[in-house]
Amino acid sequence: MVFVNAEVSPRPRRNSAAQLLEAVSQILTERNSTEVSLSDVAAASNLNAALVKYHFRNKEGLLLALVRRDAETALAQLNSLVEMPLAPEQKIRIHVSGIINTYARHPYLNRLLHELLESKDEAVVRELNAFFVKPLATAQAALLRQGVEAGAFREVAPMHFYLAITGACDQFFYSAKSLKYAFGVPEIADGMREAYAEFVADMAIKALRKG
Amino acid sequence: MVFVNAEVSPRPRRNSAAQLLEAVSQILTERNSTEVSLSDVAAASNLNAALVKYHFRNKEGLLLALVRRDAETALAQLNSLVEMPLAPEQKIRIHVSGIINTYARHPYLNRLLHELLESKDEAVVRELNAFFVKPLATAQAALLRQGVEAGAFREVAPMHFYLAITGACDQFFYSAKSLKYAFGVPEIADGMREAYAEFVADMAIKALRKG
Repeated sequence: MVFVNAEVSPRPRRNSAAQLLEAVSQILTERNSTEVSLSDVAAASNLNAALVKYHFRNKEGLLLALVRRDAETALAQLNSLVEMPLAPEQKIRIHVSGIINTYARHPYLNRLLHELLESKDEAVVRELNAFFVKPLATAQAALLRQGVEAGAFREVAPMHFYLAITGACDQFFYSAKSLKYAFGVPEIADGMREAYAEFVADMAIKALRKG
Repeated sequence: MVFVNAEVSPRPRRNSAAQLLEAVSQILTERNSTEVSLSDVAAASNLNAALVKYHFRNKEGLLLALVRRDAETALAQLNSLVEMPLAPEQKIRIHVSGIINTYARHPYLNRLLHELLESKDEAVVRELNAFFVKPLATAQAALLRQGVEAGAFREVAPMHFYLAITGACDQFFYSAKSLKYAFGVPEIADGMREAYAEFVADMAIKALRKG
């Protein structure tokens, strides 16, 4: 929880926004769902549902802010990775694990991203792309360029790489029911996620290697 | 349109099911959406909305039957591909193009698959996996095995390959808004789809090659 402003004031304390986000995050994690009502969030956070409107306008605004909160941590790590003195292949491997670990840490995040990218409110779609997809794509493009400059990677279209790798990572989380019914895997066991991350990282690196 | 049974009978003609499926397919294609009402379908097909209930129980049943119709053609082609006397790498290339062309031919199909795989009706999820995901995964596994037996491919887990490749293909269709807002690509131009299919096919082949 982030205590942005602890002083007592007649306006809602600014940390009530962080409390609401933490409450909705916990509810969605427990339910393994993206369905939640404003009164659920109010009850779990001991705050008034009117505060949601004050901070986030409506439920979609609250969910968008939750994605922003979770994405900020992941994007900060990715931007540090770009600056690290590591071999280009090693950075791609860490990046792929980072995507998969971010989805694993916030079980609702993958579904929520998809739902908000489908929002009927075009402003929501634009905002989500601006604070999440574009910075992610920009950092990825930097990783690709570093590899090309080091003589390790061939030139590929960053958009192709983005679509293929995020699509491959997404599918693991999106397809739990298919793993169950089509592959006979009733639930994600220890090590399955790591094994898949390794497969995708290997695939990404081979797609980038010269020759 | 499939005329299964052209004889006049007091029961609804069996081809009315095919007519309803064709009507809903046309409506969803025109709207570039998966939203449709039973009365829209009835009006477009000049058939009674009660026929939808007779053939498909409800709207979700109608949409599931549409996916089944579209998937059958794609799966028949894939099963022929398994039997063709081509090099394993060539078959993978054709398979990836096949997935992407199937989604392109039926613009609603990718979204509809995702929505139905998320259905609250577990029977729908189970059925969709049984008639679509499992046969697709089985045919893919055969392509992988052929490559291993020919000495061209290393052993990979078919589930990993399935998730990574279908995920990569899906993302192109799922991400139209991100292409617009994050990559500055306002719409899918000629050749973009083919270029992406080639990228994914190359990636798949490199992931499978020995060494």
